[in-house]
Amino acid sequence: MNNLTNNILTRKNFLCIGLDTDPALLPPSFRRYRNPTLEFNKAVIETTHDLCVAYKLNTAFYESLGSMGWGNMEKTLTYIPQGHFTIADAKRGDIGNTAKQYAKAFFESLPFNAITVNPYMGADTVLPYLDYPGAVVIALGLTSNAGSADFQCQPLASGEKLYERVMHRLAESIGPDRLQFVVGATQSKSLAQIRSAIPAHTFLVPGVGTQGGSLRHVFTHGAHAEVGLLVNVSRAIIYAPQVGPGTMSGVRAAALGYHHEMKALMGHVH
Amino acid sequence: MNNLTNNILTRKNFLCIGLDTDPALLPPSFRRYRNPTLEFNKAVIETTHDLCVAYKLNTAFYESLGSMGWGNMEKTLTYIPQGHFTIADAKRGDIGNTAKQYAKAFFESLPFNAITVNPYMGADTVLPYLDYPGAVVIALGLTSNAGSADFQCQPLASGEKLYERVMHRLAESIGPDRLQFVVGATQSKSLAQIRSAIPAHTFLVPGVGTQGGSLRHVFTHGAHAEVGLLVNVSRAIIYAPQVGPGTMSGVRAAALGYHHEMKALMGHVH
Repeated sequence: MNNLTNNILTRKNFLCIGLDTDPALLPPSFRRYRNPTLEFNKAVIETTHDLCVAYKLNTAFYESLGSMGWGNMEKTLTYIPQGHFTIADAKRGDIGNTAKQYAKAFFESLPFNAITVNPYMGADTVLPYLDYPGAVVIALGLTSNAGSADFQCQPLASGEKLYERVMHRLAESIGPDRLQFVVGATQSKSLAQIRSAIPAHTFLVPGVGTQGGSLRHVFTHGAHAEVGLLVNVSRAIIYAPQVGPGTMSGVRAAALGYHHEMKALMGHVH
Repeated sequence: MNNLTNNILTRKNFLCIGLDTDPALLPPSFRRYRNPTLEFNKAVIETTHDLCVAYKLNTAFYESLGSMGWGNMEKTLTYIPQGHFTIADAKRGDIGNTAKQYAKAFFESLPFNAITVNPYMGADTVLPYLDYPGAVVIALGLTSNAGSADFQCQPLASGEKLYERVMHRLAESIGPDRLQFVVGATQSKSLAQIRSAIPAHTFLVPGVGTQGGSLRHVFTHGAHAEVGLLVNVSRAIIYAPQVGPGTMSGVRAAALGYHHEMKALMGHVH
């Protein structure tokens, strides 16, 4: 059993907190700092690390700040306690020699545990990341946006939908220790079907919280015997309104809410 | 007629030089600098800017160097003369609020003219880039790697192949001034067919040079009345072996070769 699965089962928690940190949305008290993003991330991690098993950094929110933003990713990683699973939500995808450079960027220059990858260019664009021992690739399966209907849900001549073909093709060649899939919570009708087709791999599930997906639905239709889920919540936690004294009170309360709900769900089923 | 098309027609040149700069592959004379990538890019641009109409920065090669690499992209852009078309080969693709951050990263924080985008997540992931006036999106159509057969070339139930569906869906809603497509030169059998289906949009064509595609084939099957092609060459130019005194002699000779070949092709047809 890998470390992530072990943490999920012993802590009865499968929460990933998404650090989609936008300087324009931070509490006013952080705006006085020279580097508001970094101070905010540090505070979020300090106040939530006992309530989650993973953190996901959405690289877009760092790239939009230029080289300073890239430095913020480097420093934020040093604030995350050892043992938490760290995900670069980068959705990269490119041919072999370029994929090698992305792998170097996210597994060597930045020491992430996992990277999200867009597999549309083909299976050969996914493999170079696995040259890093222990590195995990999280391939896009079925995403949570309305546009997922445009191409991912298209039926192929073979009868499968495109996202089914993508997931099967990858799952048959890469095991659950090295490969996970992004499956949006807003797609809960499809979740049970996807789980029965892909029984062993972990799903990273965005879309709970601001995007409206239900945690209970995700757990009921998506969990396997060792849970096999990481539910990501970004905005609904990090921008939660304050509920008491201290600028982080709302953040803690929101994370605690998910933690309790997950504990209850796992308590009933396992 | 936009500036890029005007440059292509008046200069009889449709060459894009790809700055996929890998510090490990630079001539020894550059390795003594504190920042070899930056000095090399500067030298390549100085020695080639009269022989091309565009430069493409493959972001992977910069991200792998961390925040210093991101800074190298910022500085490299300042070396490129005004009037050259600049492309962030970033292959980004994500839902709305994240795509907005990527657009900010590549059209505001970094002042590129265009970005390559992976449209697999849906048409709604392409639109946010167009909020920047004049910004150009270059969507993946059919790529040059072997893995393009895995998903892009899959036949849909409708009879179209997936890449055809992607290209049609986008081309019908976004005009040629704001949208281009990546179409690999190694796919020359399909190129004529793609051009007849997508008559007006410009194709960014990688795969000529090291990957083996033929410039003549690309021009014969892919050009329209205003050319509508940007042929990208990276390794075969920037890592060309020296042919005379000076470390840039081979780079200049390789770019000159493409320039002459393009001039001849355009001279005959237009």
